[in-house]
Amino acid sequence: MMEFNFSDRMNALQPSAIREILKATAGKDVIAFSAGNPSPESFPAEEMAKIAAEIFSDNYAAALQYGITEGLPALREQTFARLKEKFSIGRDFDNLIITSGGQQAIELSTKVLVNEGDTVICEDPSFIGALNAIRSYKPNLVGVPMDEEGIDVARVEEILKTDDKVKLIYVIPTFQNPSGGVMSLARRKALLELAVRYNVMILEDNPYYELRFSGEHIPTIKSMDETGHVIYAGSYSKIISPGMRIGFCVAPENLIQKIVVAKQVSDVHTNQFFMMLVSEYLRRCDIDAHIRGICELYGHKAELMYSELLKHNKGYFEVKKPEGGLFMWLKMPKGNGAELAKLAAARGVAVVPGSAFLADESAVSPCIRLNYSLPSDEDIVRGIAILCEVAAQYLSDK
Amino acid sequence: MMEFNFSDRMNALQPSAIREILKATAGKDVIAFSAGNPSPESFPAEEMAKIAAEIFSDNYAAALQYGITEGLPALREQTFARLKEKFSIGRDFDNLIITSGGQQAIELSTKVLVNEGDTVICEDPSFIGALNAIRSYKPNLVGVPMDEEGIDVARVEEILKTDDKVKLIYVIPTFQNPSGGVMSLARRKALLELAVRYNVMILEDNPYYELRFSGEHIPTIKSMDETGHVIYAGSYSKIISPGMRIGFCVAPENLIQKIVVAKQVSDVHTNQFFMMLVSEYLRRCDIDAHIRGICELYGHKAELMYSELLKHNKGYFEVKKPEGGLFMWLKMPKGNGAELAKLAAARGVAVVPGSAFLADESAVSPCIRLNYSLPSDEDIVRGIAILCEVAAQYLSDK
Repeated sequence: MMEFNFSDRMNALQPSAIREILKATAGKDVIAFSAGNPSPESFPAEEMAKIAAEIFSDNYAAALQYGITEGLPALREQTFARLKEKFSIGRDFDNLIITSGGQQAIELSTKVLVNEGDTVICEDPSFIGALNAIRSYKPNLVGVPMDEEGIDVARVEEILKTDDKVKLIYVIPTFQNPSGGVMSLARRKALLELAVRYNVMILEDNPYYELRFSGEHIPTIKSMDETGHVIYAGSYSKIISPGMRIGFCVAPENLIQKIVVAKQVSDVHTNQFFMMLVSEYLRRCDIDAHIRGICELYGHKAELMYSELLKHNKGYFEVKKPEGGLFMWLKMPKGNGAELAKLAAARGVAVVPGSAFLADESAVSPCIRLNYSLPSDEDIVRGIAILCEVAAQYLSDK
Repeated sequence: MMEFNFSDRMNALQPSAIREILKATAGKDVIAFSAGNPSPESFPAEEMAKIAAEIFSDNYAAALQYGITEGLPALREQTFARLKEKFSIGRDFDNLIITSGGQQAIELSTKVLVNEGDTVICEDPSFIGALNAIRSYKPNLVGVPMDEEGIDVARVEEILKTDDKVKLIYVIPTFQNPSGGVMSLARRKALLELAVRYNVMILEDNPYYELRFSGEHIPTIKSMDETGHVIYAGSYSKIISPGMRIGFCVAPENLIQKIVVAKQVSDVHTNQFFMMLVSEYLRRCDIDAHIRGICELYGHKAELMYSELLKHNKGYFEVKKPEGGLFMWLKMPKGNGAELAKLAAARGVAVVPGSAFLADESAVSPCIRLNYSLPSDEDIVRGIAILCEVAAQYLSDK
């Protein structure tokens, strides 16, 4: 086999451990707590089928043809209007581009802003897909730990004080992946204040925001951005369908213009048919009611997983009851989440080791991440029992 | 408005002149010879509508869910098998990934192979979307002129001899965009021989290959690649639909593995629904018969445009009758294609100036590119008459 000299930026980058786990378990009879997938019950398939048939009969020539890089104008307007009205996101200086999933908004933002050797600050642990997108432009990636209120802003300020190459602060303030944590309002304000003071951009990744099933909404950082220091990445993946790959990005107009150039050379535009389909769905259906249904479903599943953990967990895990999102984050008093994950997989339960989410890829974590949106109720009950058995054995051997 | 410090790689990159022309003329009553769009008549919409309805009724949970980065396994197998059987493309050491259009194959190949400051060789002129994708990783982009037989391989060899940083040779050997030219078999062999001797990868971009309406197929460079020196980028855009953004990339297995990592962080995977739709289309429909229909249509349109040019062209343009693809390339004996394009636009005829395709963005070209696949027969007749009037005036003023 020919040996390639890969580019420096990609040379060390490995496939996401999670997606490798998913590939390895695809089609196998395992209880999958390892995914980040929404439940298929969350897809408004009936309405989508109806709209799709209408597009094919009335408007196929536009739906199958090339579109413009910025995205379907109607969908851009509807998306931006909804963000403004419901969440006060976006000012006159902002614009919105449709992206091929929220992932692309993260990759393109990094591409247009970050030089090799620049510093990017992230929460630690954080979403591996975003960390790898950022790593693929070879910055100095600096992880900052979180506590109950979110990222340690004092530590962020220390870095900003001593490192004048910080270009981006990447955060998932609401239902953080993997920790499930929610950044407090005070921390959000403090982080934005730092970004303005040090003239650094915040990339607010917010795919789970609307999946709150208890507690009160906390304003996004972007909703407080009066100076253009926040890039907002959102997505229809968790509220309509992830397979269609439709996300969006709100940022100051001249930054969006540069992201458009980057998207043009990346994939020209997002799937045109599904942009039309989502636009029509938003026009004629009640997406807020649909999202309330998803929240009810996930609230039930989270409650079930939490109560099963209460039943079987004899101090193996530190657990917090989630108020939204897709994940629970379990911390053992000692040991290595990767070892536990391996033992659980051998018993037919797939979980993701916490180390997969660390800014330092060689570090060890006593945590694992569980997903509750995809598994059936029955799998949740069986899987948590098995997981706790495995943990009991693992920790007593330590 | 906040001023951003964009990354060095993106700082100088401008939106594609063509896409800006397309945006400016969208919805306006112009005769558009400026697009690169297939005809909507080339979309097998009826079959697609039927398959789409079936996917929604039988298999929506998979079609709307996350998929794997490599692409739908069935579609990968079908695509690879067809390339092997029909065109002898791919050896045991090769693999295939589904990409979000052929564009993404070009962008990802550059990302994984080319460091800033490395050299990339391209035909001059060449496809602006590819040149910009390559430029976005800040290489030294070196354009090599073409003659009737294609790229000047002696010049390529000179560069390879004196520059040890050449990483990639980007070519569109068949129905080149914008020149419409076809590289001779001898040149293809010579170029491959050079790539092997100097251990440099060729990126063969081949979206128009099957759109031949006269003359004989010439083997792709990839079909002669026994050593893994060719990356092959192909697409369903011109034979099924461009709006769905489905392309593919064939390359040695370990290179594909790295491209998978790059795609994972870029858009996770290509639109899952349309991968299933195309897979099912290939299974039950006769794509070769469908392509023969497209070739008949474009052969007619090319013939019409060529004969109208014969009628009105009094030495304003050097014209060659196309044997396939989407474009005609017109060269004036003097003057600037950009000036002609501006005058033609004022008369309601949109064409793309040749300078938009040059490796040196500040250079001037006496050429323009015309597309014949999208305009109606009536528009071709009217548009060519107007264009020749404008050229007569422009050249007499020179």
